Amino acid sequence: MPTVDLVADLGEGFGAYSIGDDKALLDIVSSANIACGFHAGDPDIMDATVAECVRKGVGIGAHPSFPDLRGFGRRAMDLTADEVRNDVVYQLGALTAFAAYHGGSVSHLAPHGRLGNLVATRADYAQAVADAAVRVDPNLIVLAQDGELATAAADRGLQVAIVGIADRAYQEDGTLVPRSQPGAVIHDPSAIVERTVRMVCEGLITTASGTDLAIQADTILLHGDNPGAVELARLIRSELIAAGVTVAPLAQVLAAKQKVS
Amino acid sequence: MPTVDLVADLGEGFGAYSIGDDKALLDIVSSANIACGFHAGDPDIMDATVAECVRKGVGIGAHPSFPDLRGFGRRAMDLTADEVRNDVVYQLGALTAFAAYHGGSVSHLAPHGRLGNLVATRADYAQAVADAAVRVDPNLIVLAQDGELATAAADRGLQVAIVGIADRAYQEDGTLVPRSQPGAVIHDPSAIVERTVRMVCEGLITTASGTDLAIQADTILLHGDNPGAVELARLIRSELIAAGVTVAPLAQVLAAKQKVS
Amino acid sequence: MPTVDLVADLGEGFGAYSIGDDKALLDIVSSANIACGFHAGDPDIMDATVAECVRKGVGIGAHPSFPDLRGFGRRAMDLTADEVRNDVVYQLGALTAFAAYHGGSVSHLAPHGRLGNLVATRADYAQAVADAAVRVDPNLIVLAQDGELATAAADRGLQVAIVGIADRAYQEDGTLVPRSQPGAVIHDPSAIVERTVRMVCEGLITTASGTDLAIQADTILLHGDNPGAVELARLIRSELIAAGVTVAPLAQVLAAKQKVS
Amino acid sequence: MPTVDLVADLGEGFGAYSIGDDKALLDIVSSANIACGFHAGDPDIMDATVAECVRKGVGIGAHPSFPDLRGFGRRAMDLTADEVRNDVVYQLGALTAFAAYHGGSVSHLAPHGRLGNLVATRADYAQAVADAAVRVDPNLIVLAQDGELATAAADRGLQVAIVGIADRAYQEDGTLVPRSQPGAVIHDPSAIVERTVRMVCEGLITTASGTDLAIQADTILLHGDNPGAVELARLIRSELIAAGVTVAPLAQVLAAKQKVS
Repeated sequence: MPTVDLVADLGEGFGAYSIGDDKALLDIVSSANIACGFHAGDPDIMDATVAECVRKGVGIGAHPSFPDLRGFGRRAMDLTADEVRNDVVYQLGALTAFAAYHGGSVSHLAPHGRLGNLVATRADYAQAVADAAVRVDPNLIVLAQDGELATAAADRGLQVAIVGIADRAYQEDGTLVPRSQPGAVIHDPSAIVERTVRMVCEGLITTASGTDLAIQADTILLHGDNPGAVELARLIRSELIAAGVTVAPLAQVLAAKQKVS
Repeated sequence: MPTVDLVADLGEGFGAYSIGDDKALLDIVSSANIACGFHAGDPDIMDATVAECVRKGVGIGAHPSFPDLRGFGRRAMDLTADEVRNDVVYQLGALTAFAAYHGGSVSHLAPHGRLGNLVATRADYAQAVADAAVRVDPNLIVLAQDGELATAAADRGLQVAIVGIADRAYQEDGTLVPRSQPGAVIHDPSAIVERTVRMVCEGLITTASGTDLAIQADTILLHGDNPGAVELARLIRSELIAAGVTVAPLAQVLAAKQKVS
Repeated sequence: MPTVDLVADLGEGFGAYSIGDDKALLDIVSSANIACGFHAGDPDIMDATVAECVRKGVGIGAHPSFPDLRGFGRRAMDLTADEVRNDVVYQLGALTAFAAYHGGSVSHLAPHGRLGNLVATRADYAQAVADAAVRVDPNLIVLAQDGELATAAADRGLQVAIVGIADRAYQEDGTLVPRSQPGAVIHDPSAIVERTVRMVCEGLITTASGTDLAIQADTILLHGDNPGAVELARLIRSELIAAGVTVAPLAQVLAAKQKVS
Repeated sequence: MPTVDLVADLGEGFGAYSIGDDKALLDIVSSANIACGFHAGDPDIMDATVAECVRKGVGIGAHPSFPDLRGFGRRAMDLTADEVRNDVVYQLGALTAFAAYHGGSVSHLAPHGRLGNLVATRADYAQAVADAAVRVDPNLIVLAQDGELATAAADRGLQVAIVGIADRAYQEDGTLVPRSQPGAVIHDPSAIVERTVRMVCEGLITTASGTDLAIQADTILLHGDNPGAVELARLIRSELIAAGVTVAPLAQVLAAKQKVS
């Protein structure tokens, strides 16, 4: 019986501002990527978000970013690898303290936004993130797509979980079709649901060119930035369960996989 | 044989800016109050400062502040106690991760600047800080002068260390003569050294009115913001040692005291 | 025929965040209090907001704040009067440049949030704001309720416009009933509309104790933070116009008044 | 009789931090590039710096930067040209208000740090800066090295002043030898003085390959970040004057040139 995690970016407000429907998503996901104050999130929001995750048994993940609140972490910054490592250590530590305060712990790490893109291709950034993770907490799971970060984290002995992205078209090499190309983003909810279920149950996804691609998806990335997204997230969860899938936090998904193998 | 800690505020630069002669002080102090990014300090500076502390066996302390880089944490902000608690959790966590990264740990917590003043008199802020400390790490030592924070920390079962301030005049009730009054700050280096040695060896200090006051001083606060201050700090250390005092990190000072009592 | 300005706080987003329905309000108001980056607003948002104001003939006002993005300018900070003055000069200048860029000009100044409250009672802050205004641009209109800022601005020869607040109860001395007291905020839309029309057309408002109070209202403060607020703002505008009132930017309102007197 | 401006970066402290000996430099330079809060500088420092410039007749220049206080504006950020333009408008406006407050005006604009480098080669950034300048104040002088910004500013009808950099080696095409190459930076004070005087009096500089290059230098960039730098700056000024050169603010230098031509 397949097991999968459902994850979304949470706690992405700042001060009086909010983004996304965290309340709704917290009843759908099994893990959360929680903003740590550099692209979004502030100590009060982190506190409230972590408290809810602990209360609901949602896995807590650090979602560190470039230090760019105004750009929501979406703008590249020319940081050295050491600066990236130190920024990740700082953000990871801050979230870890909120988890400890509420009697929980941080289970995973998932770089946000542009940093999240760059760690897939820049080996120096990937190694910086993996180094931060393994030395702060060697039990952390690193969330990644295939790429440099997945390699660096595995090299350092960290557990790696692969994110499946059901609303994006895949190329035959397993990478995503760039957003600039037509068909990169899939909008049809029923197609997204069907792709998700197949990804989780069969380990296969249909590529943009129509072939079947074997794919590992330990967790599925959900969105909550508009009412339709939350509705779709809810549907994905219920259809996975209807298909016999167990939805569980990342640590349980990886443990289940190890038992099988 | 008396034992005392010597502590100074370190890592108070930001980006291209620096304040204080950290390099010199790291050879003098046995503990450091390290800025955590809210009044000073950034992840790169925190990393470098913690690395040096671990290398030299200097005790690592979190020095959290109001979020006011421009005001260096010296301006009061009308925060709720919950906001203070969350800001302290965040900063403490960030520093804790750097300590873990370098194979060390945070031994103490000492609120900075205006927050440091206010926790002595505002019970709600004091309880917020104590609550943050005990739930993030119950082994933390809380650095305080007599006042609300010392009380709140002890009530929560935390170890409390009392700071002796050798270059300030004390009143008969054990509080400092306010800076606004004449004679509040002592400038004569030899007087400061003599007061320090007496405070540590005899547990006594001469008050502004000339009486002897019993005083507990687990640690002595040193400064490094100008060449004279560093020279004085060095002199205080050497005169304490000449008087038979053992200079040791805070944890050892408190352990030694417990053995005696 | 009475003339009045309708004003709302605009441009209060930051980066990816937004607050309020600026698009709707820009078709209702005749003036805007535009955030200048310290409590909300960033250069991109200021640019877009000013461009729309110029395009629609909406009066441009600077809405400076304490430097506290996380607290949305609602938390008091213990700044000196000089710091307040310099912060206001800075924010006012920034907005002025966007107005110049788009071929417009800043017509008024209205301190935001907690700073806006404090300038009504703290003479030193009021003088700091008036000094900033008169020396940067002596033609600025200062928006205020009765209080220290209105006095200080008039003393410096600045034009002062008084804000009427239709959804708040007034006391007999012309001050607002504090929010902590029952009945401080009026929620009934038709009562708010009626009070507004009477304030503008008759110069009278019914106080909390039921007496009539003579009141000057050069502009009416509207809100846009939820769909009901925008609907109410639209209703206030249409009812004023139905009552024969001319809605016009602040500068025209003050000019009309001077012609009368 | 040749006329030249002497310029340095001033007001680059932040809060409790300072960089450079502004007091000494203000007696040497005829113009200042003043930090506007994005890489350094805060409203209080801007106020104090502008006040001194007005008092001493030193030309006031805006020194806008990428928004990166921690990186001191030296790290590239992947901003759109519109974002760059808006950031420049904002910073330029803020400084302009301080100049107005003190009865002066901003005479020039000189992008700082990495932004200053990029506007020489990125046409979109250069046009963004020129557009900001010409629409906020068409009388602004744009300080540049040869490159895209000089071209864009001239295209928009702005006056352009060329900076001579006496302590850097030039290549035969007029660009600087990159810092990564040996000999890029000239350290010998007497060589720097001699190169400066020749640049100003003869309009020539000896390139790295030993040839003479015709060079326009309306202003010479001085430094003040260490005692030796200030001493050298003072020497450059006195040697220029001894050679019969008039040191004057940028506006006078350009006016004198126009009279000649």
